[in-house]
Amino acid sequence: MNHSQKYRTEETIDLSHGSGGRATARLIKELFAAHFDNALLNQGNDQAVFTPPAGRMVMSTDGHVVSPLFFPGGDIGSLAVHGTLNDVAMSGARPLYLAAGFILEEGFPLADLERIVISMANAARDAETPIVTGDTKVVERGKGDGVFITTTGVGVVPAGLTISGDRAQVGDKILINGHLGDHGVAILSSRENLQFGTSIESDSAALHTLVADMVTAAPDIHCLRDPTRGGLATTLNELAAQSAVGMRLFEDAMPVKPQVKAACEILGLDPLYIANEGKLVCICPPQHADHLLKTMQQHPLGKHAAIIGEVIEDAQHFVQMQTSFGGARIVDWLSGEQLPRIC
Amino acid sequence: MNHSQKYRTEETIDLSHGSGGRATARLIKELFAAHFDNALLNQGNDQAVFTPPAGRMVMSTDGHVVSPLFFPGGDIGSLAVHGTLNDVAMSGARPLYLAAGFILEEGFPLADLERIVISMANAARDAETPIVTGDTKVVERGKGDGVFITTTGVGVVPAGLTISGDRAQVGDKILINGHLGDHGVAILSSRENLQFGTSIESDSAALHTLVADMVTAAPDIHCLRDPTRGGLATTLNELAAQSAVGMRLFEDAMPVKPQVKAACEILGLDPLYIANEGKLVCICPPQHADHLLKTMQQHPLGKHAAIIGEVIEDAQHFVQMQTSFGGARIVDWLSGEQLPRIC
Repeated sequence: MNHSQKYRTEETIDLSHGSGGRATARLIKELFAAHFDNALLNQGNDQAVFTPPAGRMVMSTDGHVVSPLFFPGGDIGSLAVHGTLNDVAMSGARPLYLAAGFILEEGFPLADLERIVISMANAARDAETPIVTGDTKVVERGKGDGVFITTTGVGVVPAGLTISGDRAQVGDKILINGHLGDHGVAILSSRENLQFGTSIESDSAALHTLVADMVTAAPDIHCLRDPTRGGLATTLNELAAQSAVGMRLFEDAMPVKPQVKAACEILGLDPLYIANEGKLVCICPPQHADHLLKTMQQHPLGKHAAIIGEVIEDAQHFVQMQTSFGGARIVDWLSGEQLPRIC
Repeated sequence: MNHSQKYRTEETIDLSHGSGGRATARLIKELFAAHFDNALLNQGNDQAVFTPPAGRMVMSTDGHVVSPLFFPGGDIGSLAVHGTLNDVAMSGARPLYLAAGFILEEGFPLADLERIVISMANAARDAETPIVTGDTKVVERGKGDGVFITTTGVGVVPAGLTISGDRAQVGDKILINGHLGDHGVAILSSRENLQFGTSIESDSAALHTLVADMVTAAPDIHCLRDPTRGGLATTLNELAAQSAVGMRLFEDAMPVKPQVKAACEILGLDPLYIANEGKLVCICPPQHADHLLKTMQQHPLGKHAAIIGEVIEDAQHFVQMQTSFGGARIVDWLSGEQLPRIC
């Protein structure tokens, strides 16, 4: 259900929208409830009550402060849905419900907020994961930056799965579901108003249906994690440290779009350190890798999936890259800040 | 477990703490994980997996932007725990777990953040509701205001309860667990550096053990809600609208501390519209009211509980006050903004 914009250009958020009184109630009713529209939210209580399916549950939360708020391939609204759904899905879980907390800056245009809320509502509907409870706060002009959105998701983990960052084992294969670096480069190009010949769009997407296919195909997946801030390099270093293993990557196998590679060269960035918002790293026993790869490639979000490396023994838990020329280099954690407010 | 402050005065948050890389990992390990310390968080994944008890579950989320961050009776950390625990508990639920999302401003002193994190950890431990997953983002100086904390809680609803804002019925009694307006007046006095002779402390507290006693004593409670932003007046108007009833309050029965009443008179405020953070409104069938009142008065957070009104028929869903002099006036919703960033 798409709604046309109902606010005039000059209408903005003011402090009364955060008062908890009549203006807050009206904003919730006319904007949030109108678009998020679902039975649990419509109960109008300060919490949502539901009966979960039997089994283990998962909870994850993520704040979103991306700048700019609107970028090629998405906006803070769709990102706030995808980001948290993906964190839930990385346990192998089926996401059930989302909660959303908004921190709005006085003076923020209501028409922009409406655009964001519609985008969130569409992303949640597409993912079949309704936003069932929420909260709105308003801070004075200059004490925020338009809108920050913190989303929290809960889900249910299918029986028999034990996916965790500490389960990588020597000999395991490392897979990725597609091209690296699209989100970070899209944000950076829209922030700096750079043009790279072709437009690069964020890969922002909800990965839970891909995950569902993967855990059906190979329930013995050891690790799943989405390489967001800090990029693939940092995510693999986290997993190597958590599992007390080393990793060897194959440079030739890394899927990076030519235009992203070109943009990174111009900007002096390494795609391995750039945030993704529709990617997952999967670590699995070697005997399941090929079957899993084919399963991933049959899903729209895994068409460019690849086996990019393997887990090795290393007392120092280094991630190393075997380069195209046969050499090797260490792929360290991201240190310092490469791209602030990328998500 | 209390820790001494480990950061030097000059150490502050910088953008690298939000990069997702090494500085983020270190902050999480040395500050958040060190203090929140529990088995689920220590798994070190981007989500927490747990097996809930059987039954209906509840989820609630609340952003906290209170200013100042430290105030008499609490700080943004304890408030962020209590606020969300209370929203969970107002369904009658026993809270299980919390998630916390931090949005930090570049330049924020790490020693202040540590104080807040220790306060959160203590509040969560006291309430036996661990913080099992979280997220940290950093925004540039001037794009935030020190720290904002969005917490989300999940809980389990005991069988047989159906507590909801739409269940108030004509003839029901309206109860409150104690004095009104303490939180708002405490914030305001610390913000304006006002002295009212005696110090007024926030009532910030976790209400779930009081709720547990109440639902055991009278499982047929119709409504529970915490009168935070907008105060008791706004909460009762919400409930009246949701249940399509009217309400009659008794001015003589309203518990307000003399020093809060005096401060309100000086400031031109009405305690009925001032935020509370350790109060609940309970609406129950008249035959349970006395028993419930006694149960509340036996709990440390209900010592000053009172029956303050009753539900009446009113097609316009007005809340009215029967004054000490026998007259009546309408108690409307809060309109406009009385006290910005009170929670």
